[in-house]
Amino acid sequence: MNKILKNIEISLPEGEFLKKLESTKVLNVKMGFDPTSPDLHLGHAIAIKKMKELQDLGHKIIIIIGDFTARIGDPSGKDKTRPILSKEEIEKNAKTYISQLGKILDVSKIEIKRNSEWFNELKLDEFISLLSNYTVQQILERNDFKGRLEKGNPISMHEIVYPLIQGYDSIKVDADIEIGGQDQLFNLLIGRYLQEKYGKAPQTIICTPLLKGTDGKNKMSKSLKNYVGLTDLPHNMYGKIMSIPDSLIDEYFELATSFNEEEKKEIKKQNNPLNIKKRIAFNIVEQYYSKTDAEKAQKDFENKFQKRKLEDIDFVEVEMMQGETLLELIHRLLKRSKSEIRELFKNGAVSVDGKKIFDINFKPQKNFILKVGKLHYFKIK
Amino acid sequence: MNKILKNIEISLPEGEFLKKLESTKVLNVKMGFDPTSPDLHLGHAIAIKKMKELQDLGHKIIIIIGDFTARIGDPSGKDKTRPILSKEEIEKNAKTYISQLGKILDVSKIEIKRNSEWFNELKLDEFISLLSNYTVQQILERNDFKGRLEKGNPISMHEIVYPLIQGYDSIKVDADIEIGGQDQLFNLLIGRYLQEKYGKAPQTIICTPLLKGTDGKNKMSKSLKNYVGLTDLPHNMYGKIMSIPDSLIDEYFELATSFNEEEKKEIKKQNNPLNIKKRIAFNIVEQYYSKTDAEKAQKDFENKFQKRKLEDIDFVEVEMMQGETLLELIHRLLKRSKSEIRELFKNGAVSVDGKKIFDINFKPQKNFILKVGKLHYFKIK
Repeated sequence: MNKILKNIEISLPEGEFLKKLESTKVLNVKMGFDPTSPDLHLGHAIAIKKMKELQDLGHKIIIIIGDFTARIGDPSGKDKTRPILSKEEIEKNAKTYISQLGKILDVSKIEIKRNSEWFNELKLDEFISLLSNYTVQQILERNDFKGRLEKGNPISMHEIVYPLIQGYDSIKVDADIEIGGQDQLFNLLIGRYLQEKYGKAPQTIICTPLLKGTDGKNKMSKSLKNYVGLTDLPHNMYGKIMSIPDSLIDEYFELATSFNEEEKKEIKKQNNPLNIKKRIAFNIVEQYYSKTDAEKAQKDFENKFQKRKLEDIDFVEVEMMQGETLLELIHRLLKRSKSEIRELFKNGAVSVDGKKIFDINFKPQKNFILKVGKLHYFKIK
Repeated sequence: MNKILKNIEISLPEGEFLKKLESTKVLNVKMGFDPTSPDLHLGHAIAIKKMKELQDLGHKIIIIIGDFTARIGDPSGKDKTRPILSKEEIEKNAKTYISQLGKILDVSKIEIKRNSEWFNELKLDEFISLLSNYTVQQILERNDFKGRLEKGNPISMHEIVYPLIQGYDSIKVDADIEIGGQDQLFNLLIGRYLQEKYGKAPQTIICTPLLKGTDGKNKMSKSLKNYVGLTDLPHNMYGKIMSIPDSLIDEYFELATSFNEEEKKEIKKQNNPLNIKKRIAFNIVEQYYSKTDAEKAQKDFENKFQKRKLEDIDFVEVEMMQGETLLELIHRLLKRSKSEIRELFKNGAVSVDGKKIFDINFKPQKNFILKVGKLHYFKIK
């Protein structure tokens, strides 16, 4: 009972979670995923692990694949309208979820529901009657909507019905508990409220903490591309974790590793952030792959970034084009968007012959070593 | 072509109405009615008469009975959420519309559509895609929504989808022109915009002026009970019109009568408001009934309110109850709501033995003549 209460940021109403766990009932534990992007990441894993613990206690895990909702796009926590995805894209994304969940949950025992199952059949008048349970003012209280209103950023009409739509899912699956990230609190509470309105037993809300992304600034997120995916290859996973700022060490240590208390104590005794990060990275790769994979990834990393000197590296040799700026060159080499590259400049991640360059319009002379981030070296001719 | 431009408050885009009329195409002229209350009134008649003129020019009148929309309830121009009506109530109300429209239009030639026809079949994802054409901010710009937001009055989520729903009607019936009261401008423009979004020719918007109700303050409205219904009995219709404040004479003269220019000139020469009102009342009863009915109604009125003296009236005799206030007494006698009766007090419409009473808590002694409004006399014992 101790572990089950860890890594929970919010549990509502207070005390109800434990009370439900103490009963003999097999609980329906709901968690929803919008298949708007195919990758689950370490941020999702916190909640998924919580479900695993509940699964191990004998409860029923119900995964809602929001294939209908994904066609709406929920902007939770962001300030832009998401593009509406096509049915085909959503189906493609949804398919990868199950195998990814299998990295943590016993998927042979989970129930998977697509919410198109009920929303494709829902009559418009029933939907309108669903809407009538909330006021516009209540919905616009959600932080991201509020922020967008204040900034004058448009909120599309289809977005504000989203919280009610995902709340309706809880009615359909008789959720006893719903788990989600802390940014889902508002939506989860709507599910509870609607269950009561529709004469059902209301769900307990469990919100897990949010994990910051590798940029050290924003929450880990598919759309911000600052994430460590559960299906990232071992050496990428390892490398990405090594790239987090030291300020995130504690957070990753607590929320993303599987160390027991003794191991934690032992590791915390160390004072070298690099070594602690290596333990974290190793542990995470081991969780999602194997000890062998973790060892190999660690060795790779050490070879690439710790033992070698600049002279030993096998550079990719590239020719510069006439009049090309450094930004354009990197854009051509890495095939990443210019705004992402601008961000790299800003963060001092671009250097020429070992000297950091911040000016995106900088036009270098030929014959130099270009380094972008920790991973990309080029010999420019 | 001259008459067709009269009694139009707004015509958008400018010039398009005449251009469409000049073409040889038979135009689809749409007007929608929410059957939330069974009575059409003189306020509706202004727009219905405009349709009659278009019908006489050979165009096709399409009446949308908003049986689906009525289950939502549009608060246009008011500041409260309307109660959602049951299917049965709506069906009952809808049925009376056609015969009422027949008092002005040739109903054998009109097309009647119930919007449940398409909304009962509309898939939720198509509806959500309809919603995505507008932002929350755009919808909340509607005056009544804005006012309610500012006052902190709740707006239910189902209400703000209303404008898009009625706009969708225009797509389904290929409206070339939509006619509505001035307070419908916002909704009508949405219809035009959505038609364009859905690749249809956009409708021209014609808004007729709003008629004030018999209270002289608010627009004539079913829910405010300040209306003269097209099916009011002749003597009630006549009496209600006689009860309007003199300040409304011009408005009723222009918007509700069928006088030609010469008759208008002749009548306006008179200086006696009572006589002008009698001409207006007579004309209106004649429009919706017959000359004989108008004559009878006029005679009735003259007998009741002009020729008789107080002594001659056959009073209804009523006993007072122990400790009853004047408000409670009137409430019991007229079976009208206390808030309506309070309004009567405020307007000086309650008098005891010929003296106006403004204090709702006034406890009269027995044995007096109670007069409420112009129509109700009681002898209280």
